[in-house]
Amino acid sequence: MERIEHHASFGGRQEVWRHASATLGCDMRLGVYLPPAALAGQPCPVVVWLSGLTCTEQNFITKAGAQAHAARLGLIMVAPDTSPRGDGVANDPGYDLGQGAGFYLNATRAPWAPHFRMEDYVVDELPALVAQHFPTTGRQAICGHSMGGHGALTLALRHPGRYASVSAFSPIVAPSQVPWGQKALRAYLGDDPAAWAAHDTVALVARATERLPLLVDQGEADEFLATQLKPELLEAACAAAGHPLTLRRHPGYDHSYYFIASFIGEHLAHHAQALGVGG
Amino acid sequence: MERIEHHASFGGRQEVWRHASATLGCDMRLGVYLPPAALAGQPCPVVVWLSGLTCTEQNFITKAGAQAHAARLGLIMVAPDTSPRGDGVANDPGYDLGQGAGFYLNATRAPWAPHFRMEDYVVDELPALVAQHFPTTGRQAICGHSMGGHGALTLALRHPGRYASVSAFSPIVAPSQVPWGQKALRAYLGDDPAAWAAHDTVALVARATERLPLLVDQGEADEFLATQLKPELLEAACAAAGHPLTLRRHPGYDHSYYFIASFIGEHLAHHAQALGVGG
Repeated sequence: MERIEHHASFGGRQEVWRHASATLGCDMRLGVYLPPAALAGQPCPVVVWLSGLTCTEQNFITKAGAQAHAARLGLIMVAPDTSPRGDGVANDPGYDLGQGAGFYLNATRAPWAPHFRMEDYVVDELPALVAQHFPTTGRQAICGHSMGGHGALTLALRHPGRYASVSAFSPIVAPSQVPWGQKALRAYLGDDPAAWAAHDTVALVARATERLPLLVDQGEADEFLATQLKPELLEAACAAAGHPLTLRRHPGYDHSYYFIASFIGEHLAHHAQALGVGG
Repeated sequence: MERIEHHASFGGRQEVWRHASATLGCDMRLGVYLPPAALAGQPCPVVVWLSGLTCTEQNFITKAGAQAHAARLGLIMVAPDTSPRGDGVANDPGYDLGQGAGFYLNATRAPWAPHFRMEDYVVDELPALVAQHFPTTGRQAICGHSMGGHGALTLALRHPGRYASVSAFSPIVAPSQVPWGQKALRAYLGDDPAAWAAHDTVALVARATERLPLLVDQGEADEFLATQLKPELLEAACAAAGHPLTLRRHPGYDHSYYFIASFIGEHLAHHAQALGVGG
């Protein structure tokens, strides 16, 4: 675990670390924001941010403006990369499969299976790594954008009790039913419908045993709304299952980080409340 | 004047425009943030942001987090590019001269003279263009970072009465005395010391007739502090001339946008007060 960037930010520090991931079998980078309370040695809860297609750990830390809020609320923010990386890792010429597009699941099919284990990485290796190097309370929340919104929702639903709260911006809620998801699920998991359903928020909500409330923000001018995101499918699934959902549709907002920046403060306040910090 | 990007942002809209600049003889892009008040048709004052070496109009609008504050305060934020651009425009292999490094002055020497007229562009063409297309009050302030901090300070000092207020992050305050500035001033203006002094904040302060207060933030962990920035020269010049200066030194902060993001809210509040908006 080697620190490769550090920048003072809102009285805290934005860092970037590189480490050899045992789960993924490659070097990985992650952004870690330490609020002033953490720099003073006080244990803070962790909010994990999962980014979307093509992103690295850099997009969120440079564009979302989350540090202002994390500083005020006393949250450590952890932003991993979106897939395993490197010359020895399989890839695909498309932007929506392979490196930069891990979809936060464990692949079972060649050539992806040996390295593409982003679920295990995010759920197990990452929290252990963070707890080992930073002053955490041991509690965590999870959120993300687009493919990372899918990641946040599915990981929270698949691992009850692991996350105090979950939220998403513009998530892929039904990967089994949209082109981005179908391409990735087929490549990583093969053609088994049950395997797909296990990584599909809409399918998971239908059988969830824990009623963790879902907070979802969606821009109505999002260029992927009708083809890839389809929040109405999540709305219907939650209504049918009696699963608590706050789905906010925002006129005029698109799929960009300008949307995330506009509402990340409200998401972090939501997580801080669940995590018991920030007043 | 053609709009090439638009994104809802904090209830307002971040736009990017392209136009044919008569002053520079090339196409130019600029970022324009319209706060909710401007979208409602209410005239708003303008804050011009000048970026540093290598930047385009994108750096500030994607990384500084200024929209949150501009929205609240009712400020239109205008972020031009840092030089003329294009195949027909002179360039230099270095990052600190030519395209991306216009230094906010009018070049008098070949091959720069025909296009490199960033002073006229920022002081005259840009405000007219903005006033023509957006609901402005006609009042403006100016700020910037590094080379753009130099631009903000020198343009405000060279054009008394034009800007209601001025501020800078990590500015090049004495280009005549540091490598970045000497290279640029020699290339653009030749070897005349009087020409250099006319674009050097430390020299301009000594003969300023208007006592416009200068607000300057400087990170003490800035990698360019000792070689290129030297805020102590500005401090001494202002003390000698009795020119009002608020110079804040921030331990731990570097030259990056993480520093700008941390304090841009305070700069915009300063400008809003001078411009008579934001309560």
